[in-house]
Amino acid sequence: MDSSTRFHLRPIGGIRSTLRSRKNAPRQGSEGAPDAWLEVDPEFADALLGIAVGDEILVLTWLHEGVRDVLQVRPRRDPKNPLTGVFATRSPDRPNPIGLHPVTVLGIDGTKLRIGPIEAIDGTPVIDLKPVLR
Amino acid sequence: MDSSTRFHLRPIGGIRSTLRSRKNAPRQGSEGAPDAWLEVDPEFADALLGIAVGDEILVLTWLHEGVRDVLQVRPRRDPKNPLTGVFATRSPDRPNPIGLHPVTVLGIDGTKLRIGPIEAIDGTPVIDLKPVLR
Repeated sequence: MDSSTRFHLRPIGGIRSTLRSRKNAPRQGSEGAPDAWLEVDPEFADALLGIAVGDEILVLTWLHEGVRDVLQVRPRRDPKNPLTGVFATRSPDRPNPIGLHPVTVLGIDGTKLRIGPIEAIDGTPVIDLKPVLR
Repeated sequence: MDSSTRFHLRPIGGIRSTLRSRKNAPRQGSEGAPDAWLEVDPEFADALLGIAVGDEILVLTWLHEGVRDVLQVRPRRDPKNPLTGVFATRSPDRPNPIGLHPVTVLGIDGTKLRIGPIEAIDGTPVIDLKPVLR
């Protein structure tokens, strides 16, 4: 792999949430995160066919505030935790700051999906949706 | 979200597999896929600290043969299946062709991880690794 290779992502939508800052966001959705709106760009409406209320889906986000040259962190920002490689953590600081959020679809209004719980902050770009496989 | 926004990914490694073509690859790792080598670029060696043999991890790949303007498919390429939005499937054809592969770490040799089973074909770029959360 040539180290200068780059791939280009385009957002397919965005998160609208009452969470406004990374500092106050829960570390994981299961830790008291709110529900939110996932606004899919109408250009991608056809790609939603088959998603229904009650589905469990994976939301992939671009963690736009992630710091990309960080390779090790102390998990949960706890100084008592040992330095750990970011590939062994879910830190938003990582070479490619992709977030992975398992959520339930709570409602559908056109190309807007009510989802939750999700710890992503308001304005986080969404790059893909996938079904949970059993 | 401005529709002209783009994010840039860089590969952090690649897959070395006996699977050479998408046509012959299983649809999911659990469907008879082989083990493979995940070769992490030595530049990212520090980000592996804490990954151990036996760990279950998620490998995120760039499905470089995915077709990006496809919004609906017939799942499993079966003409008897109804047209379904790609966000409700795991099709490699999707606007941002990111693959998500749950694997077990079978061995570690420097920055090379033996992983499996995985349906990604030889030469597939890897963009992120994450621990499976319980």
